Amino acid sequence: MKICVLPGDGIGPEIMAEAVRVLKALDLKLEMEEGLLGGCAVDATGTPYPEATQKLAREADAVLLGAVGGPKWDTLPREQRPERGLLGIRKDLGLFANLRPAILYPELANASSLKPEIVAGLDILIVRELTGDIYFGQPRGIETREVNGTQQRVGWNTMIYAEYEIRRILKVAFEAAQKRGKKLCSVDKMNVLECTQLWRDIAEEVAKDYPDVELTHMLVDNAAMQLVRAPKQFDVMVTGNMFGDILSDEASMLTGSIGMLPSASLDANNKGLYEPSHGSAPDIAGKNLANPLATILSAAMMLRYTFNQEAAAQRVENAVKKVLAQGYRTGDIYEPGTRKVGTREMGDAVLAAL
Amino acid sequence: MKICVLPGDGIGPEIMAEAVRVLKALDLKLEMEEGLLGGCAVDATGTPYPEATQKLAREADAVLLGAVGGPKWDTLPREQRPERGLLGIRKDLGLFANLRPAILYPELANASSLKPEIVAGLDILIVRELTGDIYFGQPRGIETREVNGTQQRVGWNTMIYAEYEIRRILKVAFEAAQKRGKKLCSVDKMNVLECTQLWRDIAEEVAKDYPDVELTHMLVDNAAMQLVRAPKQFDVMVTGNMFGDILSDEASMLTGSIGMLPSASLDANNKGLYEPSHGSAPDIAGKNLANPLATILSAAMMLRYTFNQEAAAQRVENAVKKVLAQGYRTGDIYEPGTRKVGTREMGDAVLAAL
Ligand SMILES: CC(C)[C@H](C(=O)O)[C@@H](O)C(=O)O
Ligand SMILES: CC(C)[C@H](C(=O)O)[C@@H](O)C(=O)O
Repeated sequence: MKICVLPGDGIGPEIMAEAVRVLKALDLKLEMEEGLLGGCAVDATGTPYPEATQKLAREADAVLLGAVGGPKWDTLPREQRPERGLLGIRKDLGLFANLRPAILYPELANASSLKPEIVAGLDILIVRELTGDIYFGQPRGIETREVNGTQQRVGWNTMIYAEYEIRRILKVAFEAAQKRGKKLCSVDKMNVLECTQLWRDIAEEVAKDYPDVELTHMLVDNAAMQLVRAPKQFDVMVTGNMFGDILSDEASMLTGSIGMLPSASLDANNKGLYEPSHGSAPDIAGKNLANPLATILSAAMMLRYTFNQEAAAQRVENAVKKVLAQGYRTGDIYEPGTRKVGTREMGDAVLAAL
Repeated sequence: MKICVLPGDGIGPEIMAEAVRVLKALDLKLEMEEGLLGGCAVDATGTPYPEATQKLAREADAVLLGAVGGPKWDTLPREQRPERGLLGIRKDLGLFANLRPAILYPELANASSLKPEIVAGLDILIVRELTGDIYFGQPRGIETREVNGTQQRVGWNTMIYAEYEIRRILKVAFEAAQKRGKKLCSVDKMNVLECTQLWRDIAEEVAKDYPDVELTHMLVDNAAMQLVRAPKQFDVMVTGNMFGDILSDEASMLTGSIGMLPSASLDANNKGLYEPSHGSAPDIAGKNLANPLATILSAAMMLRYTFNQEAAAQRVENAVKKVLAQGYRTGDIYEPGTRKVGTREMGDAVLAAL
């Protein structure tokens, strides 16, 4: 069980340190090796996904990632920006299936900006395609050409999906729905985009293999509305890379506690990259303020999906539930009457609860 | 002052009847002529934007639209679906600037699924580009070709913007911000899409002409989150056609009363198409249940933007505020303690308040 550990930038190293401590406490035969991804890799090697990291990641069974990015690297040329590292490792490892749960922990119900009756008990799984769509489609670029008789800059990208890409992500989504509430909502914009008309057609075809799952379709604009209006109508949602980027962030913010939400990005053989849903929060980096729980829960997802260690995964998840019940809170989820702790102390509490 | 009136489908005819009554009560020299758009046009002529309507719309100074679409026409070939009519008239009339206010009326604060302190006083204007982007970009389609050694269907679309398209919509947005809170947030996905990198570059350039407006940039995934977390941070938002479709619907749902929200789609000379932000609600069509206020407020926007009749626009808007204060509510915004009325009675109340 080989893990490539990539702390990344900003709060990445701090939150990763706690997740690693938790993993080490589990008495599993885990091998961990650290590498560089994102801004720290640019600083050290000039490129956000250096060869040494590529080798490490390819040889490992799973990758555990903190977070990448920060204003320091925002003005670099495109190929050197930290997010290129993230896009690069996703594509390189074929991590086409991004699973993002949006769960509202009962203890944190107040953190949501939505009314309690709208979000209490929220438990959605968003399945986002991660290696196709307009993110990687060719041709793309910016060039100067003649438009309406004058020389102008023009920028363009290509949204594109082949049948096999749509089919495999839909299978992942149907299988996830089978293990949960048996409801799958596929999101597209078929009334405007041919690319997503194909998506809808294939969803209908794949559905025939999963008669126990109820498939519905929703247009992306309506989905963005329904997530605000009545998010509990959803069980599993599946969509393309671009719409998934937007909707999964919207859905996680419904909980008000994005510092609690893990994610998994899987290939066809359950090799995966696991990372918190939140960003690198450069403003609080190095201050022992960040919430390590999303990273710890990402480690639990890794135990479940890649290593098939369901018992260990549940042990970690239960420990997290226990520290919440005990009242431990980092600043992002703190409210009066609870116990404010730092990153390190939150890790201590999880270890104690294990 | 020539108005092309297009009631459309579903609840369209009912809500339009009330808006027309209000306009007629204003003692302005308005000429109104009715035409067909959407499903009703398909039924009558086989096409959703027939030539007679094209002529009418081109010759008019403004178009007032109810709503188009319904399940009845969803299985027709693409070119015959009602939304083709909508896309067709937007493109044909060059209506590139879509203005969508998301306003929470104090009387309707409870209708929101968000906590009152998060949304009370909400007043955002979303400026969406409406005739470019992936909506109209070429090439596009679905075809079968060889992928990884097998014959597969592939679907694709093209996101594309030329400099002049970005520049003109940003000008509209900056000018709108100047008349409001002087804050403009431009939304893109520049870290992934070259097309929107150009958008951001041009936004920076145009900003030089509006030193009194504070320009910020936000990535679309973050914008979807921030609208849920703290929507009152925004004054005017500007973005492309696709992101604008998603974000403007999300923003209007924050108010919980999409039945109250008008919209304007303008060309370069303030000719415009005005329509409610909600859809055609086929489930309640013909039952005197629909809320006509968004259409009435769209008529007010028409008086303001196309006909420069600020006083008349305010008269209508004040009448709407008055009926809300008097407690009149259609079913969509009803709560105990208020007075439930039908479409027609709501129109009567507005007329009385005028
Ligand atoms: C950093 C960025 C490229 C990335 C994406 O858009 O996929 C991020 O927003 C995410 O969702 O993981
Ligand atoms: C009906 C559809 C084509 C349209 C769009 O996507 O523009 C609608 O959602 C809107 O926002 O007016």
